[in-house]
Amino acid sequence: MQLLYGGGPMTGSAADSLTARYREVRGATEALAAPLAGEDQTPQSMPDASPVKWHRAHTTWFFETFVLEKAAPGYVAFDPAYRVLFNSYYNAVGEQYARPDRGLVTRPGIAEVARYRKHVDDAILGLLEAGSLAEESRSVVELGLHHEQQHQELLVTDLKHLFGQNPLHPVYRERAEASASAPESKWHAMERGLYEIGHHGEGFHFDNEAPRHVAHIEAFELATRPITNGEWLEFMERDGYARPELWLSDGWAAVQTRGWNAPEYWTSCDGVWHQYTLAGLRAVDPAEPVTHISVYEADAYASYAAARLPTEAEWELVAAAQPVAGNFAASGRLHPAAAGDETGLRQLFGDVWEWTRSAYSPYPGFAAAPGALGEYNGKFMANQLVLRGGSCATPAGHVRASYRNFFYPDARWQFSGVRLARDLR
Amino acid sequence: MQLLYGGGPMTGSAADSLTARYREVRGATEALAAPLAGEDQTPQSMPDASPVKWHRAHTTWFFETFVLEKAAPGYVAFDPAYRVLFNSYYNAVGEQYARPDRGLVTRPGIAEVARYRKHVDDAILGLLEAGSLAEESRSVVELGLHHEQQHQELLVTDLKHLFGQNPLHPVYRERAEASASAPESKWHAMERGLYEIGHHGEGFHFDNEAPRHVAHIEAFELATRPITNGEWLEFMERDGYARPELWLSDGWAAVQTRGWNAPEYWTSCDGVWHQYTLAGLRAVDPAEPVTHISVYEADAYASYAAARLPTEAEWELVAAAQPVAGNFAASGRLHPAAAGDETGLRQLFGDVWEWTRSAYSPYPGFAAAPGALGEYNGKFMANQLVLRGGSCATPAGHVRASYRNFFYPDARWQFSGVRLARDLR
Amino acid sequence: MQLLYGGGPMTGSAADSLTARYREVRGATEALAAPLAGEDQTPQSMPDASPVKWHRAHTTWFFETFVLEKAAPGYVAFDPAYRVLFNSYYNAVGEQYARPDRGLVTRPGIAEVARYRKHVDDAILGLLEAGSLAEESRSVVELGLHHEQQHQELLVTDLKHLFGQNPLHPVYRERAEASASAPESKWHAMERGLYEIGHHGEGFHFDNEAPRHVAHIEAFELATRPITNGEWLEFMERDGYARPELWLSDGWAAVQTRGWNAPEYWTSCDGVWHQYTLAGLRAVDPAEPVTHISVYEADAYASYAAARLPTEAEWELVAAAQPVAGNFAASGRLHPAAAGDETGLRQLFGDVWEWTRSAYSPYPGFAAAPGALGEYNGKFMANQLVLRGGSCATPAGHVRASYRNFFYPDARWQFSGVRLARDLR
Amino acid sequence: MQLLYGGGPMTGSAADSLTARYREVRGATEALAAPLAGEDQTPQSMPDASPVKWHRAHTTWFFETFVLEKAAPGYVAFDPAYRVLFNSYYNAVGEQYARPDRGLVTRPGIAEVARYRKHVDDAILGLLEAGSLAEESRSVVELGLHHEQQHQELLVTDLKHLFGQNPLHPVYRERAEASASAPESKWHAMERGLYEIGHHGEGFHFDNEAPRHVAHIEAFELATRPITNGEWLEFMERDGYARPELWLSDGWAAVQTRGWNAPEYWTSCDGVWHQYTLAGLRAVDPAEPVTHISVYEADAYASYAAARLPTEAEWELVAAAQPVAGNFAASGRLHPAAAGDETGLRQLFGDVWEWTRSAYSPYPGFAAAPGALGEYNGKFMANQLVLRGGSCATPAGHVRASYRNFFYPDARWQFSGVRLARDLR
Repeated sequence: MQLLYGGGPMTGSAADSLTARYREVRGATEALAAPLAGEDQTPQSMPDASPVKWHRAHTTWFFETFVLEKAAPGYVAFDPAYRVLFNSYYNAVGEQYARPDRGLVTRPGIAEVARYRKHVDDAILGLLEAGSLAEESRSVVELGLHHEQQHQELLVTDLKHLFGQNPLHPVYRERAEASASAPESKWHAMERGLYEIGHHGEGFHFDNEAPRHVAHIEAFELATRPITNGEWLEFMERDGYARPELWLSDGWAAVQTRGWNAPEYWTSCDGVWHQYTLAGLRAVDPAEPVTHISVYEADAYASYAAARLPTEAEWELVAAAQPVAGNFAASGRLHPAAAGDETGLRQLFGDVWEWTRSAYSPYPGFAAAPGALGEYNGKFMANQLVLRGGSCATPAGHVRASYRNFFYPDARWQFSGVRLARDLR
Repeated sequence: MQLLYGGGPMTGSAADSLTARYREVRGATEALAAPLAGEDQTPQSMPDASPVKWHRAHTTWFFETFVLEKAAPGYVAFDPAYRVLFNSYYNAVGEQYARPDRGLVTRPGIAEVARYRKHVDDAILGLLEAGSLAEESRSVVELGLHHEQQHQELLVTDLKHLFGQNPLHPVYRERAEASASAPESKWHAMERGLYEIGHHGEGFHFDNEAPRHVAHIEAFELATRPITNGEWLEFMERDGYARPELWLSDGWAAVQTRGWNAPEYWTSCDGVWHQYTLAGLRAVDPAEPVTHISVYEADAYASYAAARLPTEAEWELVAAAQPVAGNFAASGRLHPAAAGDETGLRQLFGDVWEWTRSAYSPYPGFAAAPGALGEYNGKFMANQLVLRGGSCATPAGHVRASYRNFFYPDARWQFSGVRLARDLR
Repeated sequence: MQLLYGGGPMTGSAADSLTARYREVRGATEALAAPLAGEDQTPQSMPDASPVKWHRAHTTWFFETFVLEKAAPGYVAFDPAYRVLFNSYYNAVGEQYARPDRGLVTRPGIAEVARYRKHVDDAILGLLEAGSLAEESRSVVELGLHHEQQHQELLVTDLKHLFGQNPLHPVYRERAEASASAPESKWHAMERGLYEIGHHGEGFHFDNEAPRHVAHIEAFELATRPITNGEWLEFMERDGYARPELWLSDGWAAVQTRGWNAPEYWTSCDGVWHQYTLAGLRAVDPAEPVTHISVYEADAYASYAAARLPTEAEWELVAAAQPVAGNFAASGRLHPAAAGDETGLRQLFGDVWEWTRSAYSPYPGFAAAPGALGEYNGKFMANQLVLRGGSCATPAGHVRASYRNFFYPDARWQFSGVRLARDLR
Repeated sequence: MQLLYGGGPMTGSAADSLTARYREVRGATEALAAPLAGEDQTPQSMPDASPVKWHRAHTTWFFETFVLEKAAPGYVAFDPAYRVLFNSYYNAVGEQYARPDRGLVTRPGIAEVARYRKHVDDAILGLLEAGSLAEESRSVVELGLHHEQQHQELLVTDLKHLFGQNPLHPVYRERAEASASAPESKWHAMERGLYEIGHHGEGFHFDNEAPRHVAHIEAFELATRPITNGEWLEFMERDGYARPELWLSDGWAAVQTRGWNAPEYWTSCDGVWHQYTLAGLRAVDPAEPVTHISVYEADAYASYAAARLPTEAEWELVAAAQPVAGNFAASGRLHPAAAGDETGLRQLFGDVWEWTRSAYSPYPGFAAAPGALGEYNGKFMANQLVLRGGSCATPAGHVRASYRNFFYPDARWQFSGVRLARDLR
């Protein structure tokens, strides 16, 4: 049997581990939603974002549809209407409730969604504990947990976008003020050569990280840390948002059309720039990495700084030699943190997703899986750009050096930031 | 002192009556919202509709802004941010939170809104019971109660529109199936002559119902009952939605653009027309008045039936001689009912608002009140048409023969229906 | 035989007169187009406007479709494809080429359109001169000539809108600078009473001017002249475009959405207001009537001036006693002129169409004609307002006191202006 | 002095050659426009397309702005307003007339545009013939000629789009029916290896074709010819436009939103598929390469055929070994031709631009030129995909193996087609 997604057959202890991880990941979603009332969990702030309640139900639908309906004889669906209602985009499964209308689904309410989750959890855990799930389904459970972790991050960023529209600046989680500084940014050089890119080794990975393949890369340098708010303020003061020569054509059109003059969530109060955070409205801290910028802004900044964005291969090349550690969601901060005084490569993982200039495309030899799960990644390989490294809202343990995140170039509601690169000649 | 809105000075018992009515009307709003969870009360299904929670807060804001802030020395606002957040359209009061974004206001939640209502109710009732409110402010309280009754109807129709988007067809209130028939429609004739139109007598009325004025009206006939679903089905079967010669030009454009082929909320299940109601999805009852139609549809039907829509003056002329009784919200049905076998003029009041062909314009001699409350009605006198008679969602006692409701010609989410008229020569 | 449009049977000399008028009116259209190259006659500046070439072809189509196809045995269509291509909005005739795409029809070119006109003219004139056209068709020819005159005015205003987009400010026709003044505006009073409104007597009229009917009108005053540019500049200086309390709600929304801060075609050059005219860009003359305003602006001005717009019945009542004379297209000026020093009622006819507050609705007893020509007026009786009196682009002899023009409230590209009214108590 | 665009210093004969080429290229534009009247040259069918007249003026503006204004002392602009009016997108030059409104510029007419061209041609040729132009300006003239050739192709495709909206199906140029067949498609294999990609050698090239750089390419096969209409019809018959599993997510959304069910310009007449061509409406020829498809359609076809699109590097690798010959604009056909019976690699150049799956991105080491001309290519390196090989509307001699054309993925009005590739393992 061929595993759709990487990782070898699991041993007995792996089985135990899957059950434990199932409990842990599913519990983490509920912990994120716990402070939120029905009012908070229901609306949708824009078509790209989804309600908290929807994330909780859709991740459950994933297990119900791809595990229970396929591999649990006699399983009775919690509500057959959910098959359509909580299908995100799997055409092979069938019809989907219109994405822009997710915020109109007042029923099921949050109590009913909790019951739905329990209904599915009981069935999955029953199968896992009985050891009656075939290897293929076990690998789909594994995929479902990584899928759920992705939605945990989206739950946070979508909630931030919703709360960010509210003039009362709601607090989701209090955050202690951190007072730190950012080290001087330096350049980390890499030599020209043939390198291998993409996932290797055991461990889970998404299909889009494979196959591992050879790439020829010219000599380059990568900045040792992301751009900070302080640097961004300087860009703004030097009319960065008003100089078309710095911008890609589509980026400049976006600036004009949408009136961008600062990152998303920034607002000027009495002449001082503030930003909405999940701890409420706070003055912008110059030492923190800048975040909530589109790739257009990232690219314009790079032009301004006489540099460029890295390619995803360049980024991976550097990151592969670094430990996967940083300010992830587990820190509880849910906001980027200043790098501190330490020098050397900093913050490749966590804090902010780093825009690359690479279009999200299939690797040489890539083939999507057959069936509905083949829709997971492959069909989005158009018009989006790759981001790397995870953010302060990414569950710990979810990312790795080969991990490819992707968003449209004008997206700003993720914790996206920018790290510079430049040619080395 | 000049009263902004009709009605003479109130005596002692009127004072008691105002206090009692305040309790009653405010309580009625809460009773409508009581079965609804935070999830149900928060989203907004379209810019024209508002969340249930918003209706509860905005009606409270009305009393806070126009009574307490003006006439209650030392009153402390519940939350100063609400002044903007719950201002609907009063430019003279100041900025307004963007109407299309009302569904994004997750906070305050419904518990907080309940506290807001209590805070304001305590203050108003304190003033009323102390007898310390000047006549002018008392008349604003009176206006505020009629304003709140209007929002009670909107709360119901907006909720229906929201629930109507949900494929699960939520039930707001169970409704027993009624089995009744509709009498044959006949014609009620009126002679040519000079008539007085507009409000007269004591009792509250909105400024747009005045001044009472003389109108010359040609002889005409008004149908004894509204058009039924059965008659509408016949219109549909005879290709009513596909024959441009029946339609106003703008109406035909709406049919094409929006794909209208039946009233709002109608859907065909296995070849049988059903309609979403606040008691869930039900088969269309041929004996009930048709509802949720635009004036374009009403006008096309009139053309099809070789008749026309009445003018508002014609309608008022006939209605003024009838008792104000019918299927209002108090019946608990929240759905139009069949007229039954009785003949004669039926259902002028209640069941469905009846579209007229009259543009919503100022009566001769009309002048809007000075200040913010002058924005209540006058500034909407463009592009809308008048509807008359109240509906199954109108609070009992709220309408009268001179009452002018008004909506844009393409609006379908109110309980709007059609009664025919024709020239008598 | 019943005539669709007013006027008794024509005698022999009327027959001669019809032939002569046909030549005259058709020639007048060609004279308007003569200075315009193929480039000028082809584009469409907005969906509401049509190319010059289209006006020339569509008016020809009218005679071909409603006269020749019906009443000329053996007539061979110039090009059968034109039946669709130049049908404006007659559903009963069949399909129509999409209105917003009229500017994409490069072929037929202007030479071909001229041939089309000659082909149809030859056929019509042959029938007229042979005296072989039945009375009914003769009345359709009469209607076609009035129809063509309406399109002559639209040809001018649509061309102005097209040229008005061109930064080179093209000159269509040179115009000598006139230096005149405007008299003080006074009030012309009318008594309360029962009046007859609508067309009467012989002579042509459109169906929407009938039936003549009785209306009760309260005492009122009408201004002796329209508002001037000088008065409008004062309105602007006093923040007229920035004070929401002056505006209808939909009007204020239009101001916000479209950024209106002056009439259409006005632009400030070095601090001096200029306006694009068909003679090029000129400094605004304070003595001329203001023009190219929406009814929203007219209404806001009236609020600012503590007055109101007249109803169409009020306007007609006053105008019916005045001679139909003024600055029409025949003056060659194609621009409003200052009233001069003479006092008394001025400029009711010509110069600028005067917005009324009356919705364009059917008169009591109105019935549209059967068949395609019934679509001429009746189906537009929704969402538009009535303007009265003709403009500097109206062919002389085309208007009369009972003439009802109609446009959507936000339309600004016609020569529309404002004359105030007020209640007389 | 550094040349902005490739090619070494020109010798004397090169100088003569530049003068001759200037005459030739400028004349070719006028030859394309010659059969078109003012009506044809003026309208704009969509924001992405431009009027013929505009292409003639803008290409002239290019020489005026970048050569004459910089290097011709005493040059007097033909009309200073043209600096804005005919600036396409060069922010460094200044303001630009709004792109979507290009079709509203009736003046200057085509005669005036011809005078403008002559005015500039006289000045340029004077300088060229006097030998008084510095090397840098000569290289800008060279660039201007390649720029003009690009606009020659756009002139043809934009005209086709305009004529394609006309229900009369105008004929731009008669075309003899060709009766040919297409050979069986085979696979041309390439081995895995390190290759050099990008322009090399002398001769002109655009900045985006450089620097030449090393790429590692896996073994692959390229189809010997593009997909034909016959194959596309089979795709349609097998429900290719109705099977979401074949489509990229954004592609499927485009199919739904725009109702695509066939290539652009295809229409079914009595059950037979026809396509609008510059020789009028013709039955679809199964042997010709399919054209006017988006990359979404190309990609869906590749999925259907169990293949994929080539990368631009793969395409270039194969094409670099082939002669640059094929069905270009010089054939006069302006329509793709069937390949004929010959086997082997066919039609890499000419006929149809071939979509690749490569995002239009900078090559490693790419740097845009400083100043306005740096806006030529670099700022468009977002959201577009690369097409290769030229088409039946490309001027002969304009393309080469390293030439990178680029359009948005949903663009269909270019002569775009598809050639398959697949992995070789």
